[in-house]
Amino acid sequence: MKLLRIDLTNKKAEFQVVPQEYAALGGRALTSKIILDEVDPTCNPLGKGNKLVFAPGLLSGTTAPSSGRLSVGGKSPLTGTIKESNAGGVAAQKLARMGIKALILEGAADDWNVLKITKDGVEFVDASDVIGKGNYAVGEILRNKFGEKTGVISIGPAGENKMSAASIAVADMEGRPVRHAGRGGMGAVLGSKKVKALIINDEGAPGVEIKNKEAFKEAAQSFSKMLLAHPVCGQGLPTYGTAVLINVLNEAGGLPTENFRTGRFDGADKISGETMYDTINARGGKPTHACHPGCVMRCSQVYNDDKGEYLTAGFEYETIWAFGANCKIDNLDAVAKLDRYCDDLGLDTIEMGVTLGVAMEAGIIPFGDHEGALKLFGEDIANGTPLGRILGQGAEFTGKAYGVTRIPTVKRQAIPAYDPRAVKGVGVTYATTPMGADHTAGYSVTANILKVGGYVDPLKIDGQVELSRNLQIATAAVDSTGLCLFVAFAVLDEPEALPKVVDMLNAQYGINLTLDDVTELGKSVLRWEREFNKKAGFNNAHDRLPEFFQEECPPHNTTFDFTGEELDNLFAPIESEVLAEAAAGKE
Amino acid sequence: MKLLRIDLTNKKAEFQVVPQEYAALGGRALTSKIILDEVDPTCNPLGKGNKLVFAPGLLSGTTAPSSGRLSVGGKSPLTGTIKESNAGGVAAQKLARMGIKALILEGAADDWNVLKITKDGVEFVDASDVIGKGNYAVGEILRNKFGEKTGVISIGPAGENKMSAASIAVADMEGRPVRHAGRGGMGAVLGSKKVKALIINDEGAPGVEIKNKEAFKEAAQSFSKMLLAHPVCGQGLPTYGTAVLINVLNEAGGLPTENFRTGRFDGADKISGETMYDTINARGGKPTHACHPGCVMRCSQVYNDDKGEYLTAGFEYETIWAFGANCKIDNLDAVAKLDRYCDDLGLDTIEMGVTLGVAMEAGIIPFGDHEGALKLFGEDIANGTPLGRILGQGAEFTGKAYGVTRIPTVKRQAIPAYDPRAVKGVGVTYATTPMGADHTAGYSVTANILKVGGYVDPLKIDGQVELSRNLQIATAAVDSTGLCLFVAFAVLDEPEALPKVVDMLNAQYGINLTLDDVTELGKSVLRWEREFNKKAGFNNAHDRLPEFFQEECPPHNTTFDFTGEELDNLFAPIESEVLAEAAAGKE
Repeated sequence: MKLLRIDLTNKKAEFQVVPQEYAALGGRALTSKIILDEVDPTCNPLGKGNKLVFAPGLLSGTTAPSSGRLSVGGKSPLTGTIKESNAGGVAAQKLARMGIKALILEGAADDWNVLKITKDGVEFVDASDVIGKGNYAVGEILRNKFGEKTGVISIGPAGENKMSAASIAVADMEGRPVRHAGRGGMGAVLGSKKVKALIINDEGAPGVEIKNKEAFKEAAQSFSKMLLAHPVCGQGLPTYGTAVLINVLNEAGGLPTENFRTGRFDGADKISGETMYDTINARGGKPTHACHPGCVMRCSQVYNDDKGEYLTAGFEYETIWAFGANCKIDNLDAVAKLDRYCDDLGLDTIEMGVTLGVAMEAGIIPFGDHEGALKLFGEDIANGTPLGRILGQGAEFTGKAYGVTRIPTVKRQAIPAYDPRAVKGVGVTYATTPMGADHTAGYSVTANILKVGGYVDPLKIDGQVELSRNLQIATAAVDSTGLCLFVAFAVLDEPEALPKVVDMLNAQYGINLTLDDVTELGKSVLRWEREFNKKAGFNNAHDRLPEFFQEECPPHNTTFDFTGEELDNLFAPIESEVLAEAAAGKE
Repeated sequence: MKLLRIDLTNKKAEFQVVPQEYAALGGRALTSKIILDEVDPTCNPLGKGNKLVFAPGLLSGTTAPSSGRLSVGGKSPLTGTIKESNAGGVAAQKLARMGIKALILEGAADDWNVLKITKDGVEFVDASDVIGKGNYAVGEILRNKFGEKTGVISIGPAGENKMSAASIAVADMEGRPVRHAGRGGMGAVLGSKKVKALIINDEGAPGVEIKNKEAFKEAAQSFSKMLLAHPVCGQGLPTYGTAVLINVLNEAGGLPTENFRTGRFDGADKISGETMYDTINARGGKPTHACHPGCVMRCSQVYNDDKGEYLTAGFEYETIWAFGANCKIDNLDAVAKLDRYCDDLGLDTIEMGVTLGVAMEAGIIPFGDHEGALKLFGEDIANGTPLGRILGQGAEFTGKAYGVTRIPTVKRQAIPAYDPRAVKGVGVTYATTPMGADHTAGYSVTANILKVGGYVDPLKIDGQVELSRNLQIATAAVDSTGLCLFVAFAVLDEPEALPKVVDMLNAQYGINLTLDDVTELGKSVLRWEREFNKKAGFNNAHDRLPEFFQEECPPHNTTFDFTGEELDNLFAPIESEVLAEAAAGKE
């Protein structure tokens, strides 16, 4: 495999041999290491000094089930930290089959480009036919131009306007821009380089080499069976998608409502996964749909409007929560339209839902006003009015513009869909992950709420730091394989699942990894990310939640009651090699 | 003397005995120490956890010349650092004469207040007659209500709207709101506590106790003579005000022009101190005017419009530079109107001039468009439109909203009127001071350009770190005395001046300070401020200039070429007590 380095300033590109130290890295491990090695941590994230790295995971492009995740890394304009944001869709598998281990975009062009990536290199294509357009139109124009089978990665007007909430859309199998590297404003970084889209054309690609085909096949099939046998991976996700969590979190009192005032929403039933399922079926949509070939969990869906016309897809729990409970909007069609706006304008739904809640807190529109909300997206954000530019910069920025102090962010990134006072393990992750508030970085909801991989009482502080630490390590490793994070449900419950992942890696690369090596990889990734952040100006003071989480959250009336020292203890044993080895000995 | 602690949440106030460790502190030393001792560095600056401290200097209220400076301290909503912002006007002397060593505002009220401060305590007065009004109207209404002799401290609409560029206005002897604690958004902190104004009524005040009156009188008179004998303090400032620097910096190639693109402005002559002097005289204004009783340098002035009507006063070099050269506006009347808007709306002129330059960079209005600029202030900022709310949050915020990367800030505070590539010593101060970019924190322009206190070549890096270090230490001490920083010109050139300051302090308090004690006080203040900042989340990565200062600046085509290590070396010897003592031994 090769690195494909693209210099936008000089419009040049070249394939490079993969340095030995990158050979065993993929996905997040590779994007984070390249960014640490090549980017000045104090650089302006929108300046020529920042880089944007796209890397398929180690298993992407193979027949490993659900292994088509794409990692996108750079310095985040939202958080100022290192960032790995990952997405499904078809691009990762195509890149891997073309033998591209990572695309590295550097510098910045003077005029807008579409980059056509083939097995032979890069073509810089004039972008004037797609500039200013939303992701749906961009995808249609580019597929007409370059062929239906082409994988499209693109930004909408939000990325062009360098909004810190801008995402990078990755088209799904039907060419819809519904899978996003959403978090951290990576769309603004792509926009700053003047790249509107990448065309991933894998015609004539050699495919991924598998050293030991039989062993790989056996491991992949076993792993696939384990996924299908697990109640969450094999039943819950394919049936209801992630939206199944609305009722679960509401019941648990951890569904943040009215800008994180309470943990229960009166209108939860109207926006639940079960309601969504019935609505989709009644309107001829698809409750179950895969975002990339070979996914067995198929958590996506196609949501039609009340006339039976396609409205949106990839409609997630976090999106429904963000615009729904968090903004007190109990109208599922309105939430679906807001999701569609985010996909089309190219915005992170979590950041924007929390931003909308803060805008409501500021009195720009009242809580529950779904028509006002749609107008803010369709008129202000789409057209880049001053108000749209405020909102597009995210929750912290919006709160600051209006003097609001109730802003649910960590490291300037919006806190997602699980109240940290009622699901304390995930609160620990929000506070400490190098990514800024991010549930996927250490999804303690598993043991706190779903009772997957054991049980840790969500309302107590005991055991949460350890839980979050172990999940953050495991996640950093999983994010490097290209496997969808949702495989973790099976991995946490089924002792034979992780060995199968190791077997697949060993069979593919002809190596001899152990389970410990995987853990060590996860720790290394976290250390690299923390090292970048420290050099970028972060210290323990940033690993904290906003002070309003000291207020009690109904219905449990709990607070986020960890001391700073307890939170700081999360990374202490990982950061020191010596301590890390000692800790590994204890596990 | 007493501390007067005002709890806005419960509308209670009480006089408190001054703790022994605060006895020798005043001004900046006292505000910074109280903030370090009492405020959680990770708090939201606009939340109830922040405090706002007003402290007259150690010599304020006495007959020491030019000793009426007021320090205002808190955690800054602009920078996130500790902040001491200081201002002239009459309030400091009145507070000192009332025996108030510091006013400490804590918590936050639910409704707007005017605080009437007398020797007997605090009265919470309904503010409905002044809410929403500009500082000029507020001053008029409150003086009509409380008497012409009353000292008024107030915020304009910017502070009410919690804009990060909001200042706190301190009325001068004529009751005009033209002296401001400008930097760092302290007006937003006062606004967050729902205090629109403070009335400082010193009727029946006992005055400042002087232990040794004869010695004090002798020292004060000698010091006064030295000020009057110095060419800058006794001639330059009283004649032309600070605006004399326009031609000086333009000549030196250090007058930042067009958002810091070059160091010379074609239109400099039209906005120079000399032109201002002629204009003022031709229109019947006052070229020379003191901001508080007993100032011998009288650098203020009264600037009338072309009909001979009062337009503005306290019209500084930095203001004229910020809206003038920096925005390529060569119309002095337009700049005066922008200054008036800032005074009335309650905004820092440096932050807003740099913000306007960034807005021009973003293409909101063209460079040089003074009519467009006036409209942005009169319509957008005054009315709090979304665009006004962006601009009112300062330069970094505005740049971010529009995806601009050429943003001249350090720690999110706008870089002032001296290009750091052509006046490298002050660039070192911008990078390293705990305050965010602030020329007054270590005014190396003295030795770099004015050849006061020696000469250090402004275009070379040699000696700049030491120069800035020594000035930062001295400034922290001067800011604690209540003396105007401009006494530094005489102090740097006249070896007998600083001993007279020490004599005044010793005579007033009946103590035995040495010159070394004054230096040690300065170092202590810097250490306290750095300690707060570290706990607030700052590290060396924040002590850097934006990357575009690596571009060459005409006419000298120099860059800001210090290494990070060189900059970090500034505080290293101060931060360690041992090293500090060693360094003191060498001096």
